[in-house]
Amino acid sequence: MSLVARLDAGETLFTAWSGVPDALTVEIVANQGFHAITLDMQHGGHHEDSVLRGIVPILKAGKHPLVRIPVGRFDMASRALDFGAEAVIAPMVNSVEDARRFAAAMKYPPLGERSWGPTYAFPRHGKGTQSDWLKESNQRTLAFAMIETRAALDALDGILETPGIDGIFLGPSDFSIAWTDGETVDSTLESMMETIESIAGRARKAGKHAAIYVMEPAIAGRVVSMGYQLLAMGSEHKLISLGAENLLKSVRESIAS
Amino acid sequence: MSLVARLDAGETLFTAWSGVPDALTVEIVANQGFHAITLDMQHGGHHEDSVLRGIVPILKAGKHPLVRIPVGRFDMASRALDFGAEAVIAPMVNSVEDARRFAAAMKYPPLGERSWGPTYAFPRHGKGTQSDWLKESNQRTLAFAMIETRAALDALDGILETPGIDGIFLGPSDFSIAWTDGETVDSTLESMMETIESIAGRARKAGKHAAIYVMEPAIAGRVVSMGYQLLAMGSEHKLISLGAENLLKSVRESIAS
Amino acid sequence: MSLVARLDAGETLFTAWSGVPDALTVEIVANQGFHAITLDMQHGGHHEDSVLRGIVPILKAGKHPLVRIPVGRFDMASRALDFGAEAVIAPMVNSVEDARRFAAAMKYPPLGERSWGPTYAFPRHGKGTQSDWLKESNQRTLAFAMIETRAALDALDGILETPGIDGIFLGPSDFSIAWTDGETVDSTLESMMETIESIAGRARKAGKHAAIYVMEPAIAGRVVSMGYQLLAMGSEHKLISLGAENLLKSVRESIAS
Amino acid sequence: MSLVARLDAGETLFTAWSGVPDALTVEIVANQGFHAITLDMQHGGHHEDSVLRGIVPILKAGKHPLVRIPVGRFDMASRALDFGAEAVIAPMVNSVEDARRFAAAMKYPPLGERSWGPTYAFPRHGKGTQSDWLKESNQRTLAFAMIETRAALDALDGILETPGIDGIFLGPSDFSIAWTDGETVDSTLESMMETIESIAGRARKAGKHAAIYVMEPAIAGRVVSMGYQLLAMGSEHKLISLGAENLLKSVRESIAS
Amino acid sequence: MSLVARLDAGETLFTAWSGVPDALTVEIVANQGFHAITLDMQHGGHHEDSVLRGIVPILKAGKHPLVRIPVGRFDMASRALDFGAEAVIAPMVNSVEDARRFAAAMKYPPLGERSWGPTYAFPRHGKGTQSDWLKESNQRTLAFAMIETRAALDALDGILETPGIDGIFLGPSDFSIAWTDGETVDSTLESMMETIESIAGRARKAGKHAAIYVMEPAIAGRVVSMGYQLLAMGSEHKLISLGAENLLKSVRESIAS
Amino acid sequence: MSLVARLDAGETLFTAWSGVPDALTVEIVANQGFHAITLDMQHGGHHEDSVLRGIVPILKAGKHPLVRIPVGRFDMASRALDFGAEAVIAPMVNSVEDARRFAAAMKYPPLGERSWGPTYAFPRHGKGTQSDWLKESNQRTLAFAMIETRAALDALDGILETPGIDGIFLGPSDFSIAWTDGETVDSTLESMMETIESIAGRARKAGKHAAIYVMEPAIAGRVVSMGYQLLAMGSEHKLISLGAENLLKSVRESIAS
Repeated sequence: MSLVARLDAGETLFTAWSGVPDALTVEIVANQGFHAITLDMQHGGHHEDSVLRGIVPILKAGKHPLVRIPVGRFDMASRALDFGAEAVIAPMVNSVEDARRFAAAMKYPPLGERSWGPTYAFPRHGKGTQSDWLKESNQRTLAFAMIETRAALDALDGILETPGIDGIFLGPSDFSIAWTDGETVDSTLESMMETIESIAGRARKAGKHAAIYVMEPAIAGRVVSMGYQLLAMGSEHKLISLGAENLLKSVRESIAS
Repeated sequence: MSLVARLDAGETLFTAWSGVPDALTVEIVANQGFHAITLDMQHGGHHEDSVLRGIVPILKAGKHPLVRIPVGRFDMASRALDFGAEAVIAPMVNSVEDARRFAAAMKYPPLGERSWGPTYAFPRHGKGTQSDWLKESNQRTLAFAMIETRAALDALDGILETPGIDGIFLGPSDFSIAWTDGETVDSTLESMMETIESIAGRARKAGKHAAIYVMEPAIAGRVVSMGYQLLAMGSEHKLISLGAENLLKSVRESIAS
Repeated sequence: MSLVARLDAGETLFTAWSGVPDALTVEIVANQGFHAITLDMQHGGHHEDSVLRGIVPILKAGKHPLVRIPVGRFDMASRALDFGAEAVIAPMVNSVEDARRFAAAMKYPPLGERSWGPTYAFPRHGKGTQSDWLKESNQRTLAFAMIETRAALDALDGILETPGIDGIFLGPSDFSIAWTDGETVDSTLESMMETIESIAGRARKAGKHAAIYVMEPAIAGRVVSMGYQLLAMGSEHKLISLGAENLLKSVRESIAS
Repeated sequence: MSLVARLDAGETLFTAWSGVPDALTVEIVANQGFHAITLDMQHGGHHEDSVLRGIVPILKAGKHPLVRIPVGRFDMASRALDFGAEAVIAPMVNSVEDARRFAAAMKYPPLGERSWGPTYAFPRHGKGTQSDWLKESNQRTLAFAMIETRAALDALDGILETPGIDGIFLGPSDFSIAWTDGETVDSTLESMMETIESIAGRARKAGKHAAIYVMEPAIAGRVVSMGYQLLAMGSEHKLISLGAENLLKSVRESIAS
Repeated sequence: MSLVARLDAGETLFTAWSGVPDALTVEIVANQGFHAITLDMQHGGHHEDSVLRGIVPILKAGKHPLVRIPVGRFDMASRALDFGAEAVIAPMVNSVEDARRFAAAMKYPPLGERSWGPTYAFPRHGKGTQSDWLKESNQRTLAFAMIETRAALDALDGILETPGIDGIFLGPSDFSIAWTDGETVDSTLESMMETIESIAGRARKAGKHAAIYVMEPAIAGRVVSMGYQLLAMGSEHKLISLGAENLLKSVRESIAS
Repeated sequence: MSLVARLDAGETLFTAWSGVPDALTVEIVANQGFHAITLDMQHGGHHEDSVLRGIVPILKAGKHPLVRIPVGRFDMASRALDFGAEAVIAPMVNSVEDARRFAAAMKYPPLGERSWGPTYAFPRHGKGTQSDWLKESNQRTLAFAMIETRAALDALDGILETPGIDGIFLGPSDFSIAWTDGETVDSTLESMMETIESIAGRARKAGKHAAIYVMEPAIAGRVVSMGYQLLAMGSEHKLISLGAENLLKSVRESIAS
C-alpha cells in the first residue's frame, strides 16, 4: 500500500529520519520498526548520490522513502521523485510563491511543471505503461510544505490552497526560534502549542495531511490528538546515542553488581 | 577536433546519455560507437562528483563530454565547464530570462558572468597559456537551451537571439506532455512533428545548432532531415536492456532448438 | 524459492555476470530477465564494498546473488556469505587441497570451519531464530569449484568427493588455454568439448551441480544438453556493447533510408 | 581558539585551498603549515559529501575549516555551517540583495533566517547546551562575501553595511577580468591594485574582515600591508605541482652531476 | 594515553564494534561513551578504504582505533597498523603457526617481519623522529589472537608463548559452535564458561591481555571477574536496533496513554 | 611506447608513488613530469577499487601505470594486470617459492598460471584480437620482485632465475632495517650501499631490470650509476609537503620583507 493510501486511510505513521548519506546505514534503519524513512538533505548529510542509492534498501524493506530537500532546492524535489521517493518535504515554505514553486516541481502538467524522466522511479516502483505512470504520479507522490516561521503562519491559508501541495510539515525547533525571536530553541515550548494545534486543524480542514517532527517521545500522544498523522523521529545520531547509553548502562550495571 | 568544430563542419553526431553516476560505467559507454557522452544530472543520477570523475574516461576514449544540468542550476553550468565539459544542456529554458541566466553562467565577461577557475578543465584540455584559454573558451564550449514547453516555444525567438546561447535541444517527451496538456507522453507524437521541424528551422536560420533526444531509433532519419544535427540516445538503462534482451533471446533460441 | 531449491528442482538458470563495482549498475542488470546475478571479484571490478552493497538491489529484484572470489581468497568466500550471497564460485580449484580449503570457508562446523557472524545476511534473508539459521545455512548456500586447468581435471574425482563442495563451474576460456598449452583462448574450442561434457556427467553422477560460462550464446543448447544447469553470461561490458551496436545500427539505418 | 577570535586578535592567517573532494587528500593538506583549509565548491571539486567528510581531518589537525559555496547556492551556506565550517565564502556577491540573501542563510533569527539543525556541527565542535550553541553561533561563524566584479565594487558600501556580513574576500583573477572587460586574467594586475587596497580599507573601516586569494606568493607582503588579514593560497594542483617540480629538479641534478 | 598503557594500568575498557564501512557512521559511534572502536573486516563490512578513512574520526574523538582482519589476511594486519590502528584482532588463530604468521606481520624486525612505511600512521599519531617511531612501534601496538575453536584451545600455550602476540580475544559465538560440534550458537553457553575463565587465567599468567566479545550485557560482570579486561560490544546493527526499540516504545506509550 | 620497451631501450624512468586511493588525486600526480605512476597497495591506501579507477587518468595522461601489491597478495597481481597495469611490484619476495608464486600469478600458461579475463585491460590498452593479446601479454607486462631482506639477498640468484620474474625492486628502508637488525631505518645507509650496488649488477647480468625507491633525491645519481633504471619517488604526502613548504616560505618571505 502506498504512503498516500495509508495516510488517506487514517493510519498514524512513523518515519525515521536519516542524516547519514550511506546506503548501508539507511538499510539498518529501514529494518527497524518504522513505517517510512526520510532522507534528510537539509540538516542531514544526504545528497543526490546517497538519495539515489538509499531508496533501494528502504524499498527492499517494504518501507516508504521520503526526502527532505535543502531550502529552495526545488530542482531536487523533482529529482527525489525521479529516484523513487513517495513524498518530498520542503523546508522554509514561507510564502504562497514558495509553495507554488514547490508544487510546480512536484507535479506533472497541467497541475505543475515537473519534467518527465522516471528512469529510476519507474523500474523501482512501476507497473503498467509509462502513460499509466504519468496519469497516476501526481496522486501517488506527496508534497509536504514545512511550516516553521511566522511568515509561513501568516501565509498558511494561501499555502494550503496552493494546488499540488498535499500537506504541511511542522518544524517545531525552528518554529520555537521564530516564536521567541531567536531567544531559545525548544521543540516542546508550551506557548506555541496552541498555534501548532491550530495549524494541524487548518490543514485537515483544507483536506491536507499534517506531519510533524517529534523531538521528545512524550509529546507524541499530544500531537497525534492534534491531528498530526505522520510523525518524524530518530536520526541515526539519536538512535545510536540511545542504543549506546542503553547498552553501556547494562554493561556497567553488570560489572558493578 | 572539438565538438563545436564538428558541428560547424556539418557532421551529424550521436551522443549517448549516461544516467549512472559511476566513472567505470561511463567508461564502458564511452568505448562504444557514439561521438559524445552526455552526463545527465536532471533525470539521470549524475551529480557534481560523478561529473568531475566521469569526464576523464570520456576524454581518454576521445569522445566529447556533455553535461545536462538540473532545472535552474546555472551554478552547475559553470562547474560543468570548469570540470571539462564541452557543452552544457539546460532543461526547461522557458523564457528569455532563463536563457540570459544560462548564458551568463556559461560565458566569461564581457559576454557573460562566468567566474574564472578552470582548475580541472585546463589540465584536461588545455594547451598554451591561461590567457589563450580565456580568449577561446567562450567559443569552444556550447550552451544548449532545452525547448520543451509551450512557454519556450512562445519565447523561442528571444531565446535564439540571446547572446551566448549556442543552440537549442528539443526534449520530445516533455514537449508531448505540454502539447497534449498532460494527457500523454509520446516522444514521436505525430501532431507535434511539424512544430518540432519548425523549431529546428528557426534555430538554424538564427545560426544556432539544433539537437534532440531520439527515444525511438526509427525517428532518427526524420529529425536529421529536419535539421537536427546532434542526436541524443541510449541511457545505460536502455543499452543494458537492449543487450540483455538480445543475449537472452539468442541463448533461449539455442536451448530451444 | 532459493537458488539451491531451484537447481534441485531441475531448472535451467541464467546468471548475469557483473564486473562493474557499483550498486546502481548492478540494479539495472538485476532488473533484466536473468534469474541470478554473479558479482565477479576475480576478473571483474567487484570488491568487498561493492559486493556488500550490490547484493541489496539483487534481492530487491527477487534475483539470486552469487559471488566469484579472487584466486585463493577463501576469507572472502565466508564474507560473501556473511553479506548475503546464495552461492560462491571459487576460481582455479586445482587440487583436493584447494577444494578442502574452499569448503572449510563455506560451511559451518562440523562440516567446515566457517566463523559465525551473519550481521548482514540474516536481516537480508533470515526468518526464525539464529539457531535455525545456523542449522540451515550449510544447505542453503552453495560452493562452486571452478574447473579450468588440467590439474583440476586430474583431481576432479577428489574435488567432487570433498564434503561441502556443492558443484563445479567450468571456465571454458581458461580451459581452452590449458588445453592448448597457451596457444589460444577459445571458449568453444571443439577439441575440448567431449571433456567438458564428461565433466558435467561426472559432477551429476556425484550428485553435484554443474555450471558453466557461456561466452557464445549459440553454445547454450549444447551445454544444457551436456548437463550444465546454471549458465553464466553477459557482463556489463557485453550487455552495453550489444545494446549500443543494436541501437546505433537502427539509428544509422533510419538516417540512411 | 576560533577563527573569528584569531582574526579579531589581529593575526595574519593562511588558508590552503582544497579542490580535491577526498577526505584523505584534505587530511594531508591539513597536516601542512597552514592555519586553515578552505574546501572549494565553486571551481574546486568539493560537494556536499566531501565537505561533510573533509571537515573531520581538518578539525583533527587543529585547523579551521572554511567552505566556498557555488554561485548563489545559499542553501549550501547553511549546510556548510551545519557540517561544522567556521566560515563560508560566497562568490559573486554583486549586490546588496546578494549579500542579504547570503547573510540570511548564515545567521539564525532574528539576524537571519538560518534553520536549526546542527546534527554534525554540534558534536564536532560543541560544548554546553544547544541553547548556548544557538546564542553563540551567529558570532562564531563568519560570512565572507566575494568582491570580484565592478557591480560588487559599486555596491560595496551596501554590502559592508548588510547585517550578518562579517567580511569581504577579494577574488583577484575575476576582478582582473572585470577590470579589463574580459581582455586578460592577471591576479596581480598593477592597474587594479589601488582599488584592491581601497576595498580592504573600506572593509576595515566598516569593522569587517578582509581576505584575498594570493596566486603569486610575491604579492603576499603587499596585500597584508593593504589590510588583508586572511590569505588564501595553494590548491592541491598547485602544491603537488610545486612539489613535483622541486623533487624532479633535485633528482635530475643528482643524476646529471 | 595509549591503549597499551591503559591496559597495562589495569583499566577495564569497552570497545564498540563497527560493521558499517562509512566514516560518518563510525564518527557517530566514536562520539558515544566507549573507550575504543573496533573496525570489523571479518563479519562486518569494513575494508581497506573504510579502515583508512574510519580511523580519523576515532582519533579525533580521542578514542582508540582497533581493527579485526579477515581470516588469514595477515597482509591486512600490517596495513591496519600503517593506517594508524593501535591494535589488530586476528580471527581463527588455531595453531602456533597461525600465531607466528600473525606476529610476523605485526612486528618490525628483529621480532617480526613487518615492512616499513607508516605513511598514514606517523602523521596521525607520531611525534619525534621516524627512528623513534620504529623503536617504539612494537610496544605501542597490540596483536590479539582470537581463540574460538578447540584447535586453538589445544594450542593455547604455544600461542601465548609466541613472541609478538600481546593478548588473546575470546570469540564466544564461534566457541559455542565448536563446543557443541555445530549444534548451537550461544555466546553465554554455561557449559563452556569454566573453560572461558581458564583461558583468561592462562593468558594473564603468561603476561598477556585478555579480551572478549560480550553479546549479552548481563555477562559483562562475570567475564570481567574472570580477568577479561577489554570488552567488545555494540555493532551499529545492535545500537540502532536498541535505540529504535527504545524510541518507538516511548512514542507508542505516549500515544496509547 | 610501452614501459617494457622503454626500459629495454635503456631509458632511465621516474615513477611517482601514489598512496591516496582517489582517482582525482592520481590524475593530478599523473599530470606532473614523471614517466609513470605506481599505485601503492602495501603501505599506501590503494585498494581494488582505487586501482581500477586510478589507472584511467594515468593512461589519459600518457603515463605508465604500475601497482605495488600487499605482501603475498598474488591474487591482486593478476587483478592489477586485468585492470590495465603495465607492471606489478611485489613486496617481500624472500624466497624462490615467493618468486615462483608471484610469477605464476603474473604470466599466462604455459609460463605461469594467470587466469584469462582482461575485461578492463583489453579495452583500455588493446588492439587487435584477444588471441594476439594473449600471445603478447606475458612480454608486455612486468613482474618486479622486491628485494628488501637478508633472506631475499640469500635467495637472489634463484629469484633472478625464476621464469616470469622480469626485474627486482630494491626497498632501501626495509633493507636498512634488515641490515641493522632493526636498529634503524635509513634509506641511504652507507654500509649497505655496496650490497645494493651488487644487487643491481647481478640483476642486470641475469638480464633483469633493476628498480629502486629513492627517498633522498641526492642519492639518485649514485643509484643510476649502479644500474638502477626505474626510480620510484614522491608520494602525495611528500609532494604536498614539499609544495606547502616551498609556498609558505615564499609567502612568509614576502610578508617579512
